Amino acid sequence: MTVFDEATAVSLRSEGLYDAAADPRFALVAPGSATPPAVNGGALMATVLRAVLDCSPNPHPVATSANFLRVPQLAPAEIHVSWLKQGKTASTARATLLQDGLAILDTTVTTGTLLPGTAAASPGAANDGAEPASSQQLDWTGERPWIADIADCLDLGSWPGTVAADGSAGFAAHVEVLLDPACTGWRQHEPSGVPEMRGYVRLRDHRDPDALLLALAVDALPPVVFGLGATGWAPTVELTWHMRGVPAPGPLQVAARCRHVSGGWFDEEAEVWDASGRLVAQSRQLARVGRGPLHVTVNASAVPAITEVFSPKSIRSSRT
Amino acid sequence: MTVFDEATAVSLRSEGLYDAAADPRFALVAPGSATPPAVNGGALMATVLRAVLDCSPNPHPVATSANFLRVPQLAPAEIHVSWLKQGKTASTARATLLQDGLAILDTTVTTGTLLPGTAAASPGAANDGAEPASSQQLDWTGERPWIADIADCLDLGSWPGTVAADGSAGFAAHVEVLLDPACTGWRQHEPSGVPEMRGYVRLRDHRDPDALLLALAVDALPPVVFGLGATGWAPTVELTWHMRGVPAPGPLQVAARCRHVSGGWFDEEAEVWDASGRLVAQSRQLARVGRGPLHVTVNASAVPAITEVFSPKSIRSSRT
Repeated sequence: MTVFDEATAVSLRSEGLYDAAADPRFALVAPGSATPPAVNGGALMATVLRAVLDCSPNPHPVATSANFLRVPQLAPAEIHVSWLKQGKTASTARATLLQDGLAILDTTVTTGTLLPGTAAASPGAANDGAEPASSQQLDWTGERPWIADIADCLDLGSWPGTVAADGSAGFAAHVEVLLDPACTGWRQHEPSGVPEMRGYVRLRDHRDPDALLLALAVDALPPVVFGLGATGWAPTVELTWHMRGVPAPGPLQVAARCRHVSGGWFDEEAEVWDASGRLVAQSRQLARVGRGPLHVTVNASAVPAITEVFSPKSIRSSRT
Repeated sequence: MTVFDEATAVSLRSEGLYDAAADPRFALVAPGSATPPAVNGGALMATVLRAVLDCSPNPHPVATSANFLRVPQLAPAEIHVSWLKQGKTASTARATLLQDGLAILDTTVTTGTLLPGTAAASPGAANDGAEPASSQQLDWTGERPWIADIADCLDLGSWPGTVAADGSAGFAAHVEVLLDPACTGWRQHEPSGVPEMRGYVRLRDHRDPDALLLALAVDALPPVVFGLGATGWAPTVELTWHMRGVPAPGPLQVAARCRHVSGGWFDEEAEVWDASGRLVAQSRQLARVGRGPLHVTVNASAVPAITEVFSPKSIRSSRT
């Protein structure tokens, strides 16, 4: 059993009630801050999902909305699961992780069934090239984000935000994050000026990806605002992710970007693609920008935004 | 009072309990289907948000996750609101709309405070051009999606999916949706081949936009899969939206796209920009593709995907 599987384990106490723990092996500590040690949000989500899937009539967590209400203690926890609806296509549960009677992480999870994985033929094409007979057979995927070759990416190792309270390696000791070198300038106080992070995520223990690892992957990269020089502790307030496919074995490709930072709030949206080239998860979180000075030696505000959502090459009006 | 404000009204019965209704004036009916009439999901979200904001310590619904569990009856409803946390920066409530004791729409809403609106200077630039002194003052926005000029857009009028059960106009009689002509081909069974919808949304009654109208706007355009010829009833399973700014007066610009359709599931993510050019809301929903035949006269699978999330022009690795 991998450290990840141990750290996110749950045990059934009674119907809808599970024992779990916020495991120090996935701890994060903000460098130089008075913030108490926290546990990586993705690892906590995986723990809650394990309880939900244990009692779900459907196999895949197709939609998970998570509200991070309080900083978890590195201590035992309990998870309450209650089903709002159970159906053939979709079932929805509320699941809450509590410590000392207080809700730490509150989630709503919809489970359903995803098709077995098939590699996408090419962007925007039906996978098998055949004309689908009905709407339900539609198969369409947008263009894959560009990420540097894995051989060119840098193992982040134990960057300060991943070291546990006692100085031992937490999250980074168990999760290998290989970052596109274009996104690593913040480590030398030379951020790229663009709020994007891209790279590869896998466990240092060998283990094939699944739904639980996707929950980890969507929150595994450094916060996108590090690219703007805001390298303080950036707590997630709300994160919703959708599982879109069962991942193939191999490292997960994660591309995250931001659309708007204002008033101390920022969004971070990530896509996870598997090693076979399929889009397997999408997420967006709303988080708080860390307090403290900006660590910028170039003027980030002088760098134009070059990320596009809706490309100007998109379908155009016939009138233009 | 506008029809929208009447239709989404709530009245306090006791602490945390509100009376409301699923109003037929915002009804939708799937053309030619046996599906019972439903109420537009955005109007239902606005109704629930009205109850949440009535008892919230913070003014703006910065994060709303909504799970559409059952098709509402066109009948009275009650809304239960319970607070999981109340804080200075953020407060989080669960709010559920019920009919006959059954949960129809289950939401988790985080409220907070957004800064007063200022128009963005240019994409990617700090709004005021001054170097922010701290991370908390960061102000950054990505590029605005391209949308045809409002004068070139087409008023959808009473398209079949917006007509009420008795044949009277529902949603479309009260919400003006002006669609970019590039996204209207599905009406002649000639879909664009790209799952995108773009246009302008405003009430036919004059009323300035606010948080409640943003909740309506994120789900106001026809489903993006209409662009692939799948024009059947496309029920939302889960929708999360983030309010990012207080909207300026004027029509809302909405740009929606899809990243992946497979196994009967599709995502639809929308951005809402206000008339002053600020990004004011972001959403993503997971929905089911409607049943029935594809209405395509061109081969959609032959059209390459041209929407990009992470543009190839994005920051590049220094090694490439």
